[in-house]
Amino acid sequence: MPIDLNSDLGEGYGPWPMGDDAAMLDIVSSANIACGFHAGDPAGLLAVLRQAAARGVAVGAHVSYPDRVGFGRRSMDVAPDDLTADVIYQIGAVQGLARAAGTRVTYVKPHGALYNTIADDARQADAVIAGVKAVDPSLVLMGLAGAPVLDRARAAGLSVVAEAFADRAYTVAGALVSRKQPGAVLHDADLIAARMLRLATEGVLEAEDGSILRLEADSICVHGDSPGAVAIAARVRDALIAGGVTVAPFAGGGA
Amino acid sequence: MPIDLNSDLGEGYGPWPMGDDAAMLDIVSSANIACGFHAGDPAGLLAVLRQAAARGVAVGAHVSYPDRVGFGRRSMDVAPDDLTADVIYQIGAVQGLARAAGTRVTYVKPHGALYNTIADDARQADAVIAGVKAVDPSLVLMGLAGAPVLDRARAAGLSVVAEAFADRAYTVAGALVSRKQPGAVLHDADLIAARMLRLATEGVLEAEDGSILRLEADSICVHGDSPGAVAIAARVRDALIAGGVTVAPFAGGGA
Amino acid sequence: MPIDLNSDLGEGYGPWPMGDDAAMLDIVSSANIACGFHAGDPAGLLAVLRQAAARGVAVGAHVSYPDRVGFGRRSMDVAPDDLTADVIYQIGAVQGLARAAGTRVTYVKPHGALYNTIADDARQADAVIAGVKAVDPSLVLMGLAGAPVLDRARAAGLSVVAEAFADRAYTVAGALVSRKQPGAVLHDADLIAARMLRLATEGVLEAEDGSILRLEADSICVHGDSPGAVAIAARVRDALIAGGVTVAPFAGGGA
Amino acid sequence: MPIDLNSDLGEGYGPWPMGDDAAMLDIVSSANIACGFHAGDPAGLLAVLRQAAARGVAVGAHVSYPDRVGFGRRSMDVAPDDLTADVIYQIGAVQGLARAAGTRVTYVKPHGALYNTIADDARQADAVIAGVKAVDPSLVLMGLAGAPVLDRARAAGLSVVAEAFADRAYTVAGALVSRKQPGAVLHDADLIAARMLRLATEGVLEAEDGSILRLEADSICVHGDSPGAVAIAARVRDALIAGGVTVAPFAGGGA
Repeated sequence: MPIDLNSDLGEGYGPWPMGDDAAMLDIVSSANIACGFHAGDPAGLLAVLRQAAARGVAVGAHVSYPDRVGFGRRSMDVAPDDLTADVIYQIGAVQGLARAAGTRVTYVKPHGALYNTIADDARQADAVIAGVKAVDPSLVLMGLAGAPVLDRARAAGLSVVAEAFADRAYTVAGALVSRKQPGAVLHDADLIAARMLRLATEGVLEAEDGSILRLEADSICVHGDSPGAVAIAARVRDALIAGGVTVAPFAGGGA
Repeated sequence: MPIDLNSDLGEGYGPWPMGDDAAMLDIVSSANIACGFHAGDPAGLLAVLRQAAARGVAVGAHVSYPDRVGFGRRSMDVAPDDLTADVIYQIGAVQGLARAAGTRVTYVKPHGALYNTIADDARQADAVIAGVKAVDPSLVLMGLAGAPVLDRARAAGLSVVAEAFADRAYTVAGALVSRKQPGAVLHDADLIAARMLRLATEGVLEAEDGSILRLEADSICVHGDSPGAVAIAARVRDALIAGGVTVAPFAGGGA
Repeated sequence: MPIDLNSDLGEGYGPWPMGDDAAMLDIVSSANIACGFHAGDPAGLLAVLRQAAARGVAVGAHVSYPDRVGFGRRSMDVAPDDLTADVIYQIGAVQGLARAAGTRVTYVKPHGALYNTIADDARQADAVIAGVKAVDPSLVLMGLAGAPVLDRARAAGLSVVAEAFADRAYTVAGALVSRKQPGAVLHDADLIAARMLRLATEGVLEAEDGSILRLEADSICVHGDSPGAVAIAARVRDALIAGGVTVAPFAGGGA
Repeated sequence: MPIDLNSDLGEGYGPWPMGDDAAMLDIVSSANIACGFHAGDPAGLLAVLRQAAARGVAVGAHVSYPDRVGFGRRSMDVAPDDLTADVIYQIGAVQGLARAAGTRVTYVKPHGALYNTIADDARQADAVIAGVKAVDPSLVLMGLAGAPVLDRARAAGLSVVAEAFADRAYTVAGALVSRKQPGAVLHDADLIAARMLRLATEGVLEAEDGSILRLEADSICVHGDSPGAVAIAARVRDALIAGGVTVAPFAGGGA
């Protein structure tokens, strides 16, 4: 009964650090590595990839819209062919850095607004899927548990991994509660850890209305962008292990 | 007695084209593909890589300083570790695009100010060499015939290919005449073609003072950034073939 | 009965030229100057501003989303406060360059996807209006004749100028026919010139269905991004002058 | 006997903060505001300019080479005309934001590698001076006390202000001890504060060899890029005031 823990890493840029990558690499089993489009400069990315390799943490390419100042969080109407090429370029760049660091890219996770858009938008989803396949059809696509993009990717011949978000509330329908709603983001480390243990062992989560939601997730996304976030992530890991769950890269995600 | 013809391609950016890539791909045997740092957006690069693949033209990564507005022509004091990582990132990105286009990167040619700097500057040369080796030690480094960087690369275990410039005058010592000097750039297509045929068949070139210069070059660099340049490049190719020289990718440069 | 002719200028970037700015400056009375976000590097912008100053052509800031590789043509979900600051930054930058060139910015015209979005989207329209007002409330906002953004800008206290597009077909309702429709872009120079003369003298235009559309336009937008486009622009100017119309910057747009 | 305290502010970028601008604005009398080339996005710059305006802190444009990932710290061989235009663009952009924030730019301070280069390099120095003059000849140029650039600027008709660095050791000749030397950067807050009080009241500083160096400085540069740096800056300010020195913008630097 293993589960994967993933987090966004390598998100500094030039003189600007972000988060505590070293601490997070001791917690997670999979590292979503920025590719330079929303964050990450080559030297910083190479450094975090070396750390990931040293710890045996699996590596994914965290592809984004080309929008550094907006951190890839703003939806952009990128034409499908451009998006496909952007995805290929980013995966290739991180593959090169990963090779230099003694590891390899095993999966791809779209970032920010691109992640949200392709969850439902078939046109951009297909463009991303085409990019992943064009570089290496054995790459796994990580996406939101329950989102149509995972079905599209599977139909296109890609392996997929479904993820849940540790610190987010879920609707009855299994969607994330919008960040604009109160209660969308959870802050209680004990509660979060208990929820994730239950998810990993029973495959269920309590939705915002108290009902029980069935969610098939192979990976849990935790954050490391503040000391509080790192502490929550550590608590999730500890609770999983104490509950008998093995924290390990998802099948196919090993470096 | 084959010789390689190489040219810089994929140097448009977004809405801005540069040169006539399609015409040049019918002339050259090796294409130095921009990597996005001085020129080249992913979709444009993917398109030219597909054309190169279709024509069997070998593909190199044309790595640069990160200076798009200056087209990589301005020397920059980049720290060695940053330069190494920049080189890895760029090679990886073009490797990804090349795979998607059905071809592969066989060599690396530094661009512009980086090319000139590493010809003599051991610190930056070693940083580039380290980057190439870290991605794939079987990649060939292309550099200026006679420049110390080629010896350093060989000593580090890389294969190298030495190139001559079709339209440039040479000093007695075998260096390029500075562009600031009159006569540094040749414009007479017949003269240029005759010089390159002699270089390919006899291994010599007439220096600016009329003396005969021995130059071991495996590749000849031609330009395609104007209709006149394309015509000169075609003349060089025609003269070589008419003179019995095979135009083909250098050893190790085949796709 | 004067009318203004405007065109997008300064849209090269670094080594990449675009269009024939010098030719267009002999045709138009107002130059929409790129601000660096979708196109335009400082040295290139300064050069075209000097030419505009020498010819007495009025100068506007052609503000854009921050998307150079996409040439500002992709809609972006920029938060209002960020958009306001982006607009201020761009206007200020071109004001600085204009002062150095001996002229001044008299109006602001949003570019590409931003232009289209704010025509109808009140949230982004208000953000742009706020930016213009914050820099200098005497700046004129140029927008699509008939679009709600002009009413919003007027209500906010800005002067506005309404423009028509010389080479575009119009719907019965006065909107531009979508570029995805056949016939959206006109190519017949004589027809275009005749339409613009009628617009300038009678205030009407024939819509795509042949009905007569009343359109109050103070300025006509012409393009210069190809030799054919420059020829059409020249024909429009010649037809206007031959028809007794004075081509001159709109009221308030003089340098 | 007033003296100015200046610091680099607005050096975050998009999602990445840097330093504690609010704390520093309570300490300094002049704020060197990033212009977007090495750091600073429009919304972040507008916010810090509003804070500076509210506190009556004078505002300067902190112009840089175009090198965000390198934070403007890498020397670049920018052609003089390009450098002049880059300076104009940056000053204009911050002037626009300053107007929107209810303040104005009164001086210009080159940043990082550009600062160091123009201290001695006449070609780039003249390019910067030309840019400042072209925008507004009443702008003051801030530079290293004793550096030739200040004489060149004065000769060109600009007002200048000479600055000393609070936490740096000085050579007997009045130059900064290279950061590569041990002891180049001072860390003892009491020592730094005492040195700056003596500089402000007696016009002298103890050089690295213990000899007394006469230094005419109108402004003292303090840093705010770490909690320790902010504390040192506050100590300098407190020591100056306790010693009877007024901390105020230099003549001509008032907003």
